[in-house]
Amino acid sequence: MFPNTKEILRKARTIWALDHASSLMNWDIEVNMPTEGIQERGIAASEIALLRQKLLLDEELSSLMERAEKEELNDYERGLLRVLKREIKIAKSLPPELVQELTRVTQEAKVIWREAREKDDYNKFKPYLERIVELERKAADFLGYEKHPYDALLDLHEEGLTTDDALNIFSLLEPGIKKVLSKLEFYGEHWLEKQKYEIDAMRSLNLELLKILGYPLGSRSRFDVSAHPFTIHMGIRDVRITTRYEGFDFKRSFFSTLHEFGHALYELQVDDALMATPLSKGVSLGIHESQSRFWENIIGRSMEFVKGIQNILREKLSFLRDVPAEEIYRYFNIVKPSLIRTEADEVTYNLHIILRFKIELKMVEGSIRIEEVPEEWDNLMEDLIGIRPRSYKDGVLQDIHWSMGDIGYFPTYTLGNVISAQIRRCMMRDLPVYEDVERLEFGRIKNYLREKVHKWGSVYAPKELIKRSFNEDIDPQAFLEYLEEKYSGSYL
Amino acid sequence: MFPNTKEILRKARTIWALDHASSLMNWDIEVNMPTEGIQERGIAASEIALLRQKLLLDEELSSLMERAEKEELNDYERGLLRVLKREIKIAKSLPPELVQELTRVTQEAKVIWREAREKDDYNKFKPYLERIVELERKAADFLGYEKHPYDALLDLHEEGLTTDDALNIFSLLEPGIKKVLSKLEFYGEHWLEKQKYEIDAMRSLNLELLKILGYPLGSRSRFDVSAHPFTIHMGIRDVRITTRYEGFDFKRSFFSTLHEFGHALYELQVDDALMATPLSKGVSLGIHESQSRFWENIIGRSMEFVKGIQNILREKLSFLRDVPAEEIYRYFNIVKPSLIRTEADEVTYNLHIILRFKIELKMVEGSIRIEEVPEEWDNLMEDLIGIRPRSYKDGVLQDIHWSMGDIGYFPTYTLGNVISAQIRRCMMRDLPVYEDVERLEFGRIKNYLREKVHKWGSVYAPKELIKRSFNEDIDPQAFLEYLEEKYSGSYL
Repeated sequence: MFPNTKEILRKARTIWALDHASSLMNWDIEVNMPTEGIQERGIAASEIALLRQKLLLDEELSSLMERAEKEELNDYERGLLRVLKREIKIAKSLPPELVQELTRVTQEAKVIWREAREKDDYNKFKPYLERIVELERKAADFLGYEKHPYDALLDLHEEGLTTDDALNIFSLLEPGIKKVLSKLEFYGEHWLEKQKYEIDAMRSLNLELLKILGYPLGSRSRFDVSAHPFTIHMGIRDVRITTRYEGFDFKRSFFSTLHEFGHALYELQVDDALMATPLSKGVSLGIHESQSRFWENIIGRSMEFVKGIQNILREKLSFLRDVPAEEIYRYFNIVKPSLIRTEADEVTYNLHIILRFKIELKMVEGSIRIEEVPEEWDNLMEDLIGIRPRSYKDGVLQDIHWSMGDIGYFPTYTLGNVISAQIRRCMMRDLPVYEDVERLEFGRIKNYLREKVHKWGSVYAPKELIKRSFNEDIDPQAFLEYLEEKYSGSYL
Repeated sequence: MFPNTKEILRKARTIWALDHASSLMNWDIEVNMPTEGIQERGIAASEIALLRQKLLLDEELSSLMERAEKEELNDYERGLLRVLKREIKIAKSLPPELVQELTRVTQEAKVIWREAREKDDYNKFKPYLERIVELERKAADFLGYEKHPYDALLDLHEEGLTTDDALNIFSLLEPGIKKVLSKLEFYGEHWLEKQKYEIDAMRSLNLELLKILGYPLGSRSRFDVSAHPFTIHMGIRDVRITTRYEGFDFKRSFFSTLHEFGHALYELQVDDALMATPLSKGVSLGIHESQSRFWENIIGRSMEFVKGIQNILREKLSFLRDVPAEEIYRYFNIVKPSLIRTEADEVTYNLHIILRFKIELKMVEGSIRIEEVPEEWDNLMEDLIGIRPRSYKDGVLQDIHWSMGDIGYFPTYTLGNVISAQIRRCMMRDLPVYEDVERLEFGRIKNYLREKVHKWGSVYAPKELIKRSFNEDIDPQAFLEYLEEKYSGSYL
């Protein structure tokens, strides 16, 4: 598969090994590590990060790549060079002092953000956000961009995504979603949101769900508990997901399991031949999110899935015994304006992202001062979702992302939602998707995802992958069609 | 602490970080890894091992060390140079082809050994043992030695241990132990060896034991289950032990927990100032084993400990309700000839080691042919312990060590037993050891071990550490005194 790039692969394998170790170290922090182990873990992680950087910037590697570019290369080899070049470019562009300063500031900012959110004190966090935006803006300048400094930050999180792309997506979604919302008659609470569950019963339900999905528990994957659910992969044959048990509102743990399963399946179905190479992982955050959202929303929140799984739900959770499928579907799909992004339904969710995108754009442009951000946040919230936060906690201080320096990250969530709807549209042309879903038969769906997306790992850049596999560009219309179809006036 | 070796420490820290990652990867294999993850884990581990080798042989590091040696150095700095020089010497001496061949052969041999043992077929394993001895002998020549090629292999496992040292120890122990045995009147089975236990109850007992010992579970350590109990450390603040639950003969799980606690305490009590340096770990296998055996045997198998812990034992394991302390003590200390080293009591255990030592010495010298080894094993077994194996499984094929290329490892077990008895003798001059044990008060004992042994990490070489802290050389007489005192004619 790599006739002309063997030497490059050889060197890349060492970098892959360090990533393998770092993944395990990160997983361990969340799932297993004794609390006081954090200091030594931190030292080890930063040493390994530095070493990785050194290997990436090794001149021998660069000259091997230059030479390889003059050869006849196949898609795999071109992918290999693309991925490495991108990483090298980023590593070379950012001065070590800037990277160190960002690491230092964000490490502190993460702690301060937590305190500020607890005390509902924006002023505490403000100087950090100021500094982070400043540093990110500098990073953008070092990375370079054609039109807008935000392009550079977007690309950092999603290869090839530009501000124009994002503007195109959001300018279509904003009115489209508002229109769907305006036709919805039902907003409200659902009694199941307060319903408590036994953790053992819920764990048993999640395990049954994973079994039905064919998650290779024990042989190629794990399922653990952590404060925030996540997926991490050590390789194609070792992918691990987590969930959490809050003890009430069982759909949270249920859909987080399904969501992480979607991420995991992507990594598990990468072509074996890419093992231990830089191509052996999902290509981007956006494509990854399209997979998690596909399973969580497109499949998991469908009426067919509810019908298929209802007996298992009732068997595991006794309080569902007399609840009809329609009622469970309603509980899964209730749409209501919420201040908190992570609690939002699939209709309003992207409005939360639009809000963050608009603010990030202004912050990076410098067209808003950091002290104006909360006011801007609240105004946008009212405009987009129709409610106004009464605290910073429920407003500008709710997300951890900015404190970690992740500016340009949020749009990948919406990109994922959009692509999941595109995949749905295409898949439905080839497969009786929802018939399979109702029978809880996921073989063909998984196979389709493997052939179109998963097996390619990072061989193709995100846009190229979508174009090649679905013959489409990024098309937010697909997402609106999906919403319109599902959330017609009488959806509940 | 390291005024003249800062640059060296800087470079060593990267190596430490790789060791930290490797430790976690090894722990994960035993405790958590999905089975099919082994292939990628293997790739990652060998890449990281190669990278570590490269960093160790970095010429800049060597020249920094040469320069430092001309400075006024304190003990810590001398220790740092000693540890690094030793590692570099080993790495430089062994040609990469030899190391690769050893890795390849032992990887295969481990699998073959398992099969051979299962099928009780020595001939299957013989060619591997032949090749391994040949390669180890070559390694000894490359490493160099003064008197005996076995010196080089011993030193590989225990810094500074020579064949003469081992001969001195064993030539005293062999008749001494035989004498103790000859006076013992009681051999036999104990009904508790067949007694089944509930795994939950046993786990609860082990956790209570660790609590009494002050094991910092959750904050700086873990306690998990694995096929073979072991201790591993990621650093001073993250040390992990495991046990196993066979469901009968509760002393196995109980003493394995106590044994691993002894290993763990050593790592946990290393001086904080040595964190993330090459000195932040126990100095050798022998000293390590002295710590595990101290807790397992010297403390755990004492009458005072039984008296102290008897109520907890009875509370956790209901079948002990009417069993008096003397009976539990007898069960803990029953002496009987056994074919299997890992099941041996503390009196006969070292005879098993002597047997292996004698055979290893001959194999390395070439004074025995590999096909003669089983016969030699059985003869020695009869001579030393008075019973003769009826199968290879219960004889020459019982241990995994040789298949892993670990020739020169076994003597460190006896060294540990000897040193544990020396520590006991010294400690009893300063502390009312067994009064504390009976009250389950371990503060002073732990403190003593920290000051004399643990806090020094690898600052002093093994023999030097014993000399400095106890003003003694290695003295097998201490072990015989301990046995004679404990196993007088009426010990049970």
